[in-house]
This record gives sequence, structure tokens and C-alpha cells, in this order.
Amino acid sequence: MNFYGNSLTILIEELAKLPSIGNKSAQRLAFHIISLPEEKVLSLSSAIINAKKNIKHCSICHNISDNDICHICKSSKRNKNIIMIVEDSRDMAAYERTREFKGLYHVLHGSISPMHGIGPDEIKIKELVTRVGTNDNIEEIILATNPNVEGEATAMYIVKLLKHFDIKISRIAHGVPVGSDLEYIDEITLARALEGRLKVN
Amino acid sequence: MNFYGNSLTILIEELAKLPSIGNKSAQRLAFHIISLPEEKVLSLSSAIINAKKNIKHCSICHNISDNDICHICKSSKRNKNIIMIVEDSRDMAAYERTREFKGLYHVLHGSISPMHGIGPDEIKIKELVTRVGTNDNIEEIILATNPNVEGEATAMYIVKLLKHFDIKISRIAHGVPVGSDLEYIDEITLARALEGRLKVN
Repeated sequence: MNFYGNSLTILIEELAKLPSIGNKSAQRLAFHIISLPEEKVLSLSSAIINAKKNIKHCSICHNISDNDICHICKSSKRNKNIIMIVEDSRDMAAYERTREFKGLYHVLHGSISPMHGIGPDEIKIKELVTRVGTNDNIEEIILATNPNVEGEATAMYIVKLLKHFDIKISRIAHGVPVGSDLEYIDEITLARALEGRLKVN
Repeated sequence: MNFYGNSLTILIEELAKLPSIGNKSAQRLAFHIISLPEEKVLSLSSAIINAKKNIKHCSICHNISDNDICHICKSSKRNKNIIMIVEDSRDMAAYERTREFKGLYHVLHGSISPMHGIGPDEIKIKELVTRVGTNDNIEEIILATNPNVEGEATAMYIVKLLKHFDIKISRIAHGVPVGSDLEYIDEITLARALEGRLKVN
């Protein structure tokens, strides 16, 4: 229902199309936006346009970037012999926040999921094989796809494709999350944590 | 930290400035936006600009509108002799959704709140007095400010200002909300519901 005139109603409708924004939140956001000074509204709206316009995929790792080659692939401080394979740029960002990984990434932009009609050709697997095949310095591939059915299937598929290269391929460890409470952790994770136990003495 | 290049990082920062949007939600929204087709991104961004640009206050009731006079004040189907006073256009919309009120509104755009430095002059009270003073047909003023300290104070202040006009002034009823559970309702509301009890036989 149009209580506020067209412009505000259209804005509320547009905001309500965004994920996890319901009608009430859209209304609250819209009222907030119209209460902002004009330059702030302009900078929000141009951030939206510019992000859509400027964003491309790094031609090496397919990470999201403003440039043809992303800042990680371009950096001289990274170890170019190790590649971590992630499903998504957000997973890359999650690993970057740890500051523990100094290699390069390969962003698949998805995982193999026959349920959703996503096969190996829909994600950047061919590009990975080409990248590995044309780069003699790669020493290790770390599979950091998600620890769920699709992520595991994708990891296994990649292992199969890359096994004829003479490269170490590893998978990030499954186990109990740090800070968690054993009684709430599912059996499969507990079993994996037991399986992957490390000697401490 | 800039993991995704400038454009996307700026968008995430802009979105995170919105109320109740944290960093994680901003990131999710930003990724959603860049995954949209270009025309949808344009329509979101222009909805933002247009809402800010086109929105004005109705010169009669101060409701938010695209026009000088809002569709409610303009309508020939409304009873122009009854005015409901609300704090905010959203409260107006809430009453419109009931489809029970056929009069006009007066939107104060706030409530008197000395704690937040908002006095009677910061909200549309002068405009209300002028409106009532220059309009001989008004029969009733319904005070529908919020049932909290500021809303009650604002209502009382308006009663004082308008009492020399020969107009009925009423306040929406306090009581137990429909569909609620008595055991969870605060004592003041229960006391007001008792006080305002209606004869049913």
C-alpha cells in the first residue's frame, strides 16, 4: 500500500528485495536514508553503482577486484608456490583475516552441486587446471572448500583432476572449533577430530 | 581491511552505516548487489536518489509525500473534521493499515523530549495550532502519540495548547493488546486496561 507517495514506496520495495531485509526493515532503512544529508545519500547510491560497474575477477585467481590482477596476486610478499582453493571471495577474506596464510588463492565461485544444477563447468575448475598446468612452480594446493557435502565433493573432484601433477594436495583439517563446547558438537565432527588427532608429547 | 578491491569495500562500508546492518550483513548485501543484473542495481540506486530528491512534507498534515498535498489530504473520501495526531509517518501508515480511521492526520515528526533536546518548537506543534485555529470545521482531535513518556508529555502539551478551542480532544485507549497474554503484560498497562474497562452487557 502506498502511504508515503511513490518515491518512498519504491525505495521501500527496492530495499525489501534484498536478502534478509523484510518489509519492516526496508521501511526503517528507507526512513533512515531520506533523513540523511544529500551528500551521504549520493555516496551510498554511487557506491552501489560503482561496485557493480568496476568489479571484475582477477585474471589469475578469480578473486573479486577492481583491477585485472588482484592485490594478492600482485603482491611480492606472497608465496606464489602455494594455492589455497576456496569457494568464494568471502572465504578468501575469512582466511586473510587469520593472517596465517601467505600463499595465493584460487576462487571457484561456487561448489559442485548437482541438486542446484551446478556442475564442474559452472565454477572455475577448468581455470584451476590450466593455472596449475601452466605453472611449474606450484608446490602445494590446499583445498579449503566448505566442510559440507558440496564442498567435499568439489574437493574430491579437484583431487582427481590434479592427481597426475606432481604436487602436494592437502585439505584443511576437520575438527572441533576453537572455543566450542564438545557436548554440542555433532558426531561426525567429533569422529573427524578423533581421526585427525595430533601427537602432543 | 580491503580484501575485495576498493569499489566493493566502499559499498560494504556504506551499507554498514545503515541502522541495524552490521559488517557481516553489509558484506552479504554487497555481494548480493554485485550479483544482480545491471538494471536491477540501477533501479535500486535510483530509488535511493529519487526518494531523497522527491520527498517533501504535505503542506497541510506534514505527512511524507511526493506532492505538495498528500493523497490523504487531497482525498474527497476522508472526513476533514477529524484530525489524528501522530508522531511519525510510520504511525500514520500503521493506522491506515487498520482501515478504521477515515479522518485526516497531523504528523508531528517527533515528540517532546527534553532528554534529547527536542522541545515543542522542533516538532510540528505550531503548525498544528495554526491549522486548528484557521479551520472552523474541525470537530475532534485524536491524540495518537506513542504510549510512552515522550508521547504522553507531547499529548498533554497539545491538550493544553488546544483547550481554548471548542473542539473535542481524545486520546487513543490504553489497554491490553489484542492476542496478548495477560501474564506477560506490565502492571501499568493492566491498571490502565482496568481503568478503561467498558460495559459489555
